[in-house]
Amino acid sequence: VDLDRMAAVQARMDRQTKPRGSLGRLEEFARRFVAITGREDIRRKEIYTFAGDHGVAAEGVSAFPPEVTPQMVYNFLAGGAGVNALARHAGAEVRVVDMGVDHDFGELPGLIHRKIARGTANLRRGPAMTRDQAIEALEAGIALANAAADAGVDLLGTGDMGIANTTPSAAIAAVFSGLPPTQVTHRGTGIDDQSLLRKIAVIEEGIAINAPNPQNPLDVLAKVGGFEIGGIAGLVLGGAARSIPVVVDGFISTAGALIACEMHPQVREYIFAAHRSVEVGHAVMLERMAQQPILDLQMRLGEGTGAALAMSLIEAALRGLREIQTFDQAGVTQGRDQ
Amino acid sequence: VDLDRMAAVQARMDRQTKPRGSLGRLEEFARRFVAITGREDIRRKEIYTFAGDHGVAAEGVSAFPPEVTPQMVYNFLAGGAGVNALARHAGAEVRVVDMGVDHDFGELPGLIHRKIARGTANLRRGPAMTRDQAIEALEAGIALANAAADAGVDLLGTGDMGIANTTPSAAIAAVFSGLPPTQVTHRGTGIDDQSLLRKIAVIEEGIAINAPNPQNPLDVLAKVGGFEIGGIAGLVLGGAARSIPVVVDGFISTAGALIACEMHPQVREYIFAAHRSVEVGHAVMLERMAQQPILDLQMRLGEGTGAALAMSLIEAALRGLREIQTFDQAGVTQGRDQ
Repeated sequence: VDLDRMAAVQARMDRQTKPRGSLGRLEEFARRFVAITGREDIRRKEIYTFAGDHGVAAEGVSAFPPEVTPQMVYNFLAGGAGVNALARHAGAEVRVVDMGVDHDFGELPGLIHRKIARGTANLRRGPAMTRDQAIEALEAGIALANAAADAGVDLLGTGDMGIANTTPSAAIAAVFSGLPPTQVTHRGTGIDDQSLLRKIAVIEEGIAINAPNPQNPLDVLAKVGGFEIGGIAGLVLGGAARSIPVVVDGFISTAGALIACEMHPQVREYIFAAHRSVEVGHAVMLERMAQQPILDLQMRLGEGTGAALAMSLIEAALRGLREIQTFDQAGVTQGRDQ
Repeated sequence: VDLDRMAAVQARMDRQTKPRGSLGRLEEFARRFVAITGREDIRRKEIYTFAGDHGVAAEGVSAFPPEVTPQMVYNFLAGGAGVNALARHAGAEVRVVDMGVDHDFGELPGLIHRKIARGTANLRRGPAMTRDQAIEALEAGIALANAAADAGVDLLGTGDMGIANTTPSAAIAAVFSGLPPTQVTHRGTGIDDQSLLRKIAVIEEGIAINAPNPQNPLDVLAKVGGFEIGGIAGLVLGGAARSIPVVVDGFISTAGALIACEMHPQVREYIFAAHRSVEVGHAVMLERMAQQPILDLQMRLGEGTGAALAMSLIEAALRGLREIQTFDQAGVTQGRDQ
């Protein structure tokens, strides 16, 4: 991130016909985007929706059955899910990645095949995946970011699909924050009180049996993570490495981004946190990453839906940067203390 | 507002392929828009930026001199201001209305001529305007909403331009809330501590000398309001009367909308509060109108900039309503308790 460029952009915005700083966080978005990319416009925006299944679904931690993961993959490819609708509104493309869905899609057109296994193992009983699988998941995300960079994508977004995946995400939040699972675990797609208590117990047992080491983010990903979470972490790492800002969606995406940030803290500078999820553990992770979410619309859908909305606001900020005239250009008198 | 229609829309969203309610406030936006308009898409969006000058500017309550009001009108018409850039991003048209700028624009193309006078009187010394002028301001806004409705506009936005207009807006907030001006007065375009104290004193004196009656919103508008604030109030009233939702921008627009709501409380149902402004009195007015702002981006520019951003989110919500497939359509298994 180029700090001189950031200062130059702010100085230019300070000469625009508006009270200094009056576009608030839009100015931050513009400043950061230009500092990261060197560009003032966005040619292509892509949202990567990573899908994976979870052995821990067998513990009854979700309101939906696991077959919904592949069903939703078909729905994404047909353009009929929430992320598709909101991405069309934002002018972003949705790319769907099979990181580890428990289903044989065959040669399904449009699907990016990166399947590591047909779902993780049950983290309540042992590690969700091997260390090698965790590395493979990260590498898949990094490779996709690289390919996107080569294709001229200027803004990446993350998304997720995986029945039961708020369970590993809450486990990741608990491990890095050191907070007890009760404080970072919520209702996911909408479970009742009894299922919530079971979910908390499952996370407690999973952390106890696996003893993931918070000093070793790869260990955390392998023991209590998920394949799609690893893919998201890789996309964030790869985006940062290629100087592409990554709009991080909600709770599950933030768990992936947190793993990336724990590996390389400077990755934080490349992240835009899309929105504040209803999930209680989300704020804990955002705070740890020093991220202020762009939107707070009580959303809890995932898929990349929040990322799509936030991308449009970043683009609006860049339009302000490019198109608002300066005091000199417009012949407007500047104020005092401005 | 058609409550049956609202329930029908929610029932349809509850069958879409997502956990029930998981699009949060987007579902509220879609439900309310359809209940108000009977439509599920937006053909035309217009933002009305009302401009007026203020006698109270002579008291040194702003960081900018009054000549900036007409200068910014020229800037709006040339497309070079913040609202122009953000409205282009949202696909909305900006319509600029001279409600009472202290400048002779002649027959300026593009400008809507509704000038009531060349600025209000100084509210610290007496009423800002006569009762007849206040009525004329409201009627101008109502007429514009009517013309927009006839032209097929489905979503209206408000905006303002007028050096010193956070002063009458804070006065309006104080009168209706009953709070002392210290609690609802802020820095506007960016005044220093000393100017802020002077601004508070001016508002205190203006309320004391005019004794506006909070039971009589027209009296409040006349005594401590502004011409552009009256135009905004009229646009809100006219939009509600013609079943067009009105996206209310920031602090000044909310002062106008509050006058409309105090006249006819049911108007609240037609309002979308665009964003939470940095101005401290804004939250007080939003609470009185029972409005939850859509965005919180630390903005304080006015003009309709927040309205432009919020319009795009309402449009995204409608796209979700129209385009997300149901569980049946997509062949996705529904969850328990959904």
